Amino acid sequence: MSFHENRSQIVPEVPRPGTGRISLVGAGPGASDLMTIRAVRCLGQADVVFYDRLVEPEALDFVHPAAQRVYVGKAVGTNDWPQDRIDTAIVSAALAGKHVVRLKSGDPSVFGRAGEEIAAARAHGIAVEIIPGITAASAAAASCCRPLTERGVTDRVVLATATALTGEVPAHVCDMAQPGTTMVFYMAMLQLVSLTDRLLASGVSADQAVTVAMNVSRSDEHQLQTTVARMAGDCRQAGIQNPAVVTVSLAKTPTLPLDSPARRIPSEEPVQ
Amino acid sequence: MSFHENRSQIVPEVPRPGTGRISLVGAGPGASDLMTIRAVRCLGQADVVFYDRLVEPEALDFVHPAAQRVYVGKAVGTNDWPQDRIDTAIVSAALAGKHVVRLKSGDPSVFGRAGEEIAAARAHGIAVEIIPGITAASAAAASCCRPLTERGVTDRVVLATATALTGEVPAHVCDMAQPGTTMVFYMAMLQLVSLTDRLLASGVSADQAVTVAMNVSRSDEHQLQTTVARMAGDCRQAGIQNPAVVTVSLAKTPTLPLDSPARRIPSEEPVQ
Repeated sequence: MSFHENRSQIVPEVPRPGTGRISLVGAGPGASDLMTIRAVRCLGQADVVFYDRLVEPEALDFVHPAAQRVYVGKAVGTNDWPQDRIDTAIVSAALAGKHVVRLKSGDPSVFGRAGEEIAAARAHGIAVEIIPGITAASAAAASCCRPLTERGVTDRVVLATATALTGEVPAHVCDMAQPGTTMVFYMAMLQLVSLTDRLLASGVSADQAVTVAMNVSRSDEHQLQTTVARMAGDCRQAGIQNPAVVTVSLAKTPTLPLDSPARRIPSEEPVQ
Repeated sequence: MSFHENRSQIVPEVPRPGTGRISLVGAGPGASDLMTIRAVRCLGQADVVFYDRLVEPEALDFVHPAAQRVYVGKAVGTNDWPQDRIDTAIVSAALAGKHVVRLKSGDPSVFGRAGEEIAAARAHGIAVEIIPGITAASAAAASCCRPLTERGVTDRVVLATATALTGEVPAHVCDMAQPGTTMVFYMAMLQLVSLTDRLLASGVSADQAVTVAMNVSRSDEHQLQTTVARMAGDCRQAGIQNPAVVTVSLAKTPTLPLDSPARRIPSEEPVQ
């Protein structure tokens, strides 16, 4: 599959002749059958694949046997592969003429640090593309069979990281926790106490239902139904660890009866 | 692939014996190679597939030749297939013992009205699952090669619909348009003037960059770079129509220099 065939838009700058290219590929939440066909094909064509700690081994089954596989995962507390080393490695391989896949769990566009890798590639005149993946919020909603939006109940979704640059809960992370909103917090297991405080301070009820999903779509997936007040204790007791997402669907007060004609709009489509 | 094998969690209630089941399947943004492997396999095993107007014909190539295909799309301005008729149709087929696929563009969990179909299935004791899809926000970000989050610039993403139950722009749709946030508006082409007014009223600059992506990943994909002040006119002039997403990345004011040690946190992982 060429870049033309897969219809992705490549960086408009003319790539430097003789260089390879870089594909930032989303591996999805874990289960290899939740990868897209495009991602699988791309893995089969790569010369070298740089992959994260959270990428499941099964995803690497799609890599061509002759391709090089490079683990660039960071064990918690170590820093063998800081982002700038990854940037240098993928750029060097592409400059050597290789088709480089940077395989990331989830979707590269969502908390995937794709921007830094795109900037590094472009600084060296290397063509770069993103192949999207299923992000954890979607995967958790599917696995729990609870949509992120519900007509008349929630009409927006916030994907938020519970970890700021400083490693703490961002100060305003819960200011969007308003009725009609589904909040999804990524990688929040180390910040649950702070997150609870901030949700309560934002006016969310202590009894508000919370769904926590760990290792979504993997063989060791674990789901937990709890409340804002109990989530920190329940997760600790159940041994829930990252990668996990915390989903809080804050219903709006219904303003229209279920049989109101305004609930049926002829021109409305289920949107993408 | 059985329900066990694909590791989705099914409704815990014991399904009524002799009934079929319903899979709500995300077709992704359009290009058939952006479907997941699980979605493709599910299509190949269905007895009947109910599909939307926005599902590309290529996606139906994965349906088994002997399976029934039912178009339940709503042409704009008509109402042949209101949601309750779809609910009834999928439930009836499942009660007749069939494996029903309800194929939706994008991700069923994001503005896909999956909740109503899940409720209908459960009311009749029918097992139901969601197979996630790439949502338009992710697909547009990938296609434009602009991630939805950028470390130190944006740390949350809001997926919002520009159409409320009443067909108008929801009153508070832009109250989350704050620095550090990427706003993605789905199906906003009929509300661009109102959306512009609301973004400006929320304090967003008239010069703020806006990306509009129509028919993402399809052969007739069209991307447009504009600004808040110009987006309505530019989209009209370019003939941009739904399905399209409007992405507005509101950078936060940098608080840390690029080489600050606090920008490198050893324990931090690229999240899902």
